Amino acid sequence: MPGPKEPRRPQRFALEAIDLDEAAEEPLYRQLEAGIRAAIQAGRLRPGERLPSTRQLARDLGVARNTVVNAYGQLIIEGYLAPTAGSGTRVAAPVPDGLLQAADAGRASSNVATPPTLSDAAHRLFSINTVIADEVDRPSRPFRAHTPASDPFPRRLWAQLVARRLRTLSRSWMDRADPRGYRPLREAIAGYLGSSRGVTCDADQVMVTAGAQQAINLIAQLLIDRGDTVCIEDPGYVPAATVFELAGARIVPVPVDDEGIDVDALNAHVPRAKLVFVTPASQFPLCKTMSLARRLALLDWAERAGATIVEDDCSGEYRYAGRPLQALHGLAPAGRVLYVGTFSKLLFPTLRLGYAVVPDSMVDHVAAARWLIDQHSPPLEQAVVADFIDEGHFARHVRRMRALYAERQAALVAVAADELGAFLDVPALDTGLHLVGWPRSRASEQDLVAAALSAGLEQMPLSWFGLEQPKKTGLILGYAPFAENELRRAAARFRQAIER
Amino acid sequence: MPGPKEPRRPQRFALEAIDLDEAAEEPLYRQLEAGIRAAIQAGRLRPGERLPSTRQLARDLGVARNTVVNAYGQLIIEGYLAPTAGSGTRVAAPVPDGLLQAADAGRASSNVATPPTLSDAAHRLFSINTVIADEVDRPSRPFRAHTPASDPFPRRLWAQLVARRLRTLSRSWMDRADPRGYRPLREAIAGYLGSSRGVTCDADQVMVTAGAQQAINLIAQLLIDRGDTVCIEDPGYVPAATVFELAGARIVPVPVDDEGIDVDALNAHVPRAKLVFVTPASQFPLCKTMSLARRLALLDWAERAGATIVEDDCSGEYRYAGRPLQALHGLAPAGRVLYVGTFSKLLFPTLRLGYAVVPDSMVDHVAAARWLIDQHSPPLEQAVVADFIDEGHFARHVRRMRALYAERQAALVAVAADELGAFLDVPALDTGLHLVGWPRSRASEQDLVAAALSAGLEQMPLSWFGLEQPKKTGLILGYAPFAENELRRAAARFRQAIER
Repeated sequence: MPGPKEPRRPQRFALEAIDLDEAAEEPLYRQLEAGIRAAIQAGRLRPGERLPSTRQLARDLGVARNTVVNAYGQLIIEGYLAPTAGSGTRVAAPVPDGLLQAADAGRASSNVATPPTLSDAAHRLFSINTVIADEVDRPSRPFRAHTPASDPFPRRLWAQLVARRLRTLSRSWMDRADPRGYRPLREAIAGYLGSSRGVTCDADQVMVTAGAQQAINLIAQLLIDRGDTVCIEDPGYVPAATVFELAGARIVPVPVDDEGIDVDALNAHVPRAKLVFVTPASQFPLCKTMSLARRLALLDWAERAGATIVEDDCSGEYRYAGRPLQALHGLAPAGRVLYVGTFSKLLFPTLRLGYAVVPDSMVDHVAAARWLIDQHSPPLEQAVVADFIDEGHFARHVRRMRALYAERQAALVAVAADELGAFLDVPALDTGLHLVGWPRSRASEQDLVAAALSAGLEQMPLSWFGLEQPKKTGLILGYAPFAENELRRAAARFRQAIER
Repeated sequence: MPGPKEPRRPQRFALEAIDLDEAAEEPLYRQLEAGIRAAIQAGRLRPGERLPSTRQLARDLGVARNTVVNAYGQLIIEGYLAPTAGSGTRVAAPVPDGLLQAADAGRASSNVATPPTLSDAAHRLFSINTVIADEVDRPSRPFRAHTPASDPFPRRLWAQLVARRLRTLSRSWMDRADPRGYRPLREAIAGYLGSSRGVTCDADQVMVTAGAQQAINLIAQLLIDRGDTVCIEDPGYVPAATVFELAGARIVPVPVDDEGIDVDALNAHVPRAKLVFVTPASQFPLCKTMSLARRLALLDWAERAGATIVEDDCSGEYRYAGRPLQALHGLAPAGRVLYVGTFSKLLFPTLRLGYAVVPDSMVDHVAAARWLIDQHSPPLEQAVVADFIDEGHFARHVRRMRALYAERQAALVAVAADELGAFLDVPALDTGLHLVGWPRSRASEQDLVAAALSAGLEQMPLSWFGLEQPKKTGLILGYAPFAENELRRAAARFRQAIER
C-alpha cells in the first residue's frame, strides 16, 4: 500500500541519514540532536512535519529510547521542534524565515558576510604593528632592546612567594579587587618611589596599572580632548605618541639634545599645550639624562604653557654613573607632573605591572577608567610584587642588575669597537638598557638592519622612533639580557653578514 | 681677623644646620647629600660659593671623609655642585633660573599647580564610577550579582597547576608573550567553544583578552568612528554602552522583551547601523534567552542594516532548563558576529581573562590594538587556564556549578516568597546568576534598595541598567555565591529593614 507509506519516506530518509557512532566521544543523544538539527536546517525535514515517536525512532536507529527523548527535548527548547497535542513531536511551524539561509551560511564558509569595516583608529594604529614580537616562543636574541635580563631573575624565590600567596587565596581575594590596585602594593610603591626616586606621594595617589603602556593610555583618555596639543620628544617613544594621537591629540614633535628635550624650541613655538611627554632619567631612545637646568626650564615652560608633564621614568633605575637621579616629579609643584613607571624593566617584561602617580583630583577618574577598560590587575601578581618589595628582594635585585648591566654595556662597547668599528660608532652611555650605534659614512641604517636580520639578530632601527623627517638613523643595540660571549658571537655574525 | 672669616660664616651655618642622625635608616652620606641640596635650594648656599674640603667638612660634622666624598659626588652629577680647578668644590654657577621657586614648590605643599583639566571622556565615564566595588577586602554579600561562587572553586588544584607551571618558567616565557594570547590557551578556547557553545572558529581567530570588558573596548576602538550608530539592549549592559559612547558612537537603546532584543523596533527605526551589542544566551540584566525566531530575525536585520553583531555570551553556560543553547555565532554567516566571552564568571571574577572570536581580517588589528593598550595578558594565568581546560577540570567545574546555581536559584525563589513576598515578586529564571525582584505596588525600587543597604546587603537597582526614561525598576538579586542559609538570613534582615 504505497499511500500510507509515501509521507514517511522523505522523513525516514532524513532521520536514517543520520549516522550515529557508538565509538565517538560525543554521546549518542548529542549526535542525534545535531543530525536532526541539520536535517531541519537543510530542509530535509519540513515545517510542521511529524517526527516518529521516540520509541519508534529509537527502534529504527537501534538506540535507547532515552537517547531520542533527550535529543527531542533539547531541540524543543531550542525551538527547532514543537510538542503537539498528545505525545507527538513536529518540526516547529512556521519555521522562522531565513532559517535555511542563515543556518547554512553559518556552516558553508562559501557564504560569508562582508567583514566589518575598520575605524580610522584601527588603520592608524596598525602602522605600529611591526613593533609586535612575532616569535613569542623564542628567548631574546642580540640586540633586542628595552628588555632586562631574565636569567639572573630569582625564579625559585618568585615561585615560593607565589606559592605562599596561593596558600592564603581567600574568597574575598577571588571575588573582587580594587581598580586602583592592591593596597599593600600601592604602599610599597609609594615607599620605594620616595626613598629611591625622590617622588613624594602617598599610597592613595599610586595607581597600579597593567604596565606603563596602560598608564599612558589612561592618562590620554582622562586628559586629552580632540585637538589638544601634546608635545613628544623626537626621536621618542612612538607608542606613546600613537596613544595620544588616537585619543585625538595634535602631536608636536620636539627635538632633543644631550640635555634632553629642547625647551628653547618649546618656548619659541609652543606657547600653550595640554601635555608634554618626557623621559628625563634616560631619554628614549637616546639614553641621555635631562640636566637639572633643563628640568627647571621645562617646569618654567610648563607653568607658562599650562601644560601637564607626563614623566616616563621606566629606566630611571639604570644609571651607571653615580646613583640614579631623582625624578622630575620631586622638583615640580604638586599636580604639574604625572609620573609613570613599570616593573617590567626591573623584574621581567611579561609581568604586566606598572603604576602612575596622579594628583588626588584624578584618582577616582583613573579608577573609573581602569574599571571600564579591564577592571583591575590580577591580585596574585600584585601581592607577590608587594612581598618582593617589602622583603627587600626588589632593592637587592635592582642593585645587582645595575652592576650587571654596567658590565654588559662596557662589554658591548668593546665588542662593537672590535667587530663593528668600521661600520658603526657605538659610544658608551650613562643610562638605559641599550646603546645607539651610529653608522659610519660607508654604511646606511637600512643596509645594516638588513644585515643584522640576515644574521638572525633582533635589530631595531633608530628611525622607528623618529617622528619628523629627516629621521635620525642608527641601530638600537640592546645588551642587558646578554652575556659578553653572546654579544661577541652576535657582533661577529653581524660583521660577517655586513661583509657579504 | 674678621676679613677672612666673614665669607665662611653663612656657609658653615648652612652646613652645620644639617643634622645627621647616626641611628636613622638612611645612610649618613644620603642625609648629608639631602641637607646640602636643601641648603642650595633654600639659598643658604649661594651660586659659586666654595664648599669646605671633604676632609674639613668631615671633621666639622664628625663623620667619615668618605661620607662627604660620596655626597659631593652625587650632587656634582646632579648639577648642584661643580668641581673647580684643583680639588675644591663650589655650588654650581650660574645656578639655573628658577631653581629656588621650582625646588621649594616641589616641597612646599602650599604652592601647587592647578591640577590638569579633565577630558570630556573623563567626565562622562565618571558617571559609572558608582558601579566600582568600594569594599575590596570583604567577601561578596547577598545579593551581589554577576559573580560566581568562589567557595566551591578547586583552589588547591589551581595552586598545584600554578606551581607546576612556575617550575617550568623559562626565559622565553619571561621575555615576551603574544598579544593575541598564549597559543595553547587559544586552541583550548577554540575547542571548548566548538564543542560547548556551537561556535565554529579556529584558534587563529581567538584573541585572549583581559576579560570581556577589554574585548568590548578593543572592538569599540577597532570598529567605531565618531557618529557611528551602535544599538544596545535596554535595559542592558551599561558599561558596554559607555565604552562605545566613549569611542564616539551614537547609542540607540532598543527595548527587549521575553524573546530578546525587539527586532521589530530595529526594522522600524534603524535602517542602518554599525553595530548591535546583544546578550542572546541570557539577556543582561533580565536573564531571558533570545528565541531562535528572534535570532534569525536579528541576523536578517543585521544583513540589511550592514550591522556587525557583538554577541556577549558571558553567561551562556548558565542555563538551567535543558542544555545551554548554541551561540548566535554558530547560526550566522562568517564575519557577521563578533563573539565575546570570559572566564571570570566560570572560574573566579578576579581572574581577568576573557576572549573574543573575530574574523581573520581583524586578527592583526586586534593584536596591534592590544599591544598598544597593555601588550598582553599574564602568561602564567593563561597557561594555567589552558591546563585547567585541557585536563578536563574546566568542564567538570562548569557542570558542578550549573547544578549548584540551579539549586541556589530555587532556594532564593522560595526564600524571597517566604520573607519578601509582600514587597517583591521574584520569579524563577532559566538562565543567569541572578534573579530580578519586581516591586509590588506598595514598594519603590528606591526604598527597597535603601532598606537593603541599611541591612548590610550588596544591592543593585535594576534602573542602573536602564538607558531610556522611564527606566524599568526592580532589584537585581544575585544568588550564585550564596548558600541557602546565607540567602535566608539575608532575606530576613532585608524584611526587617523594610518593615522599619
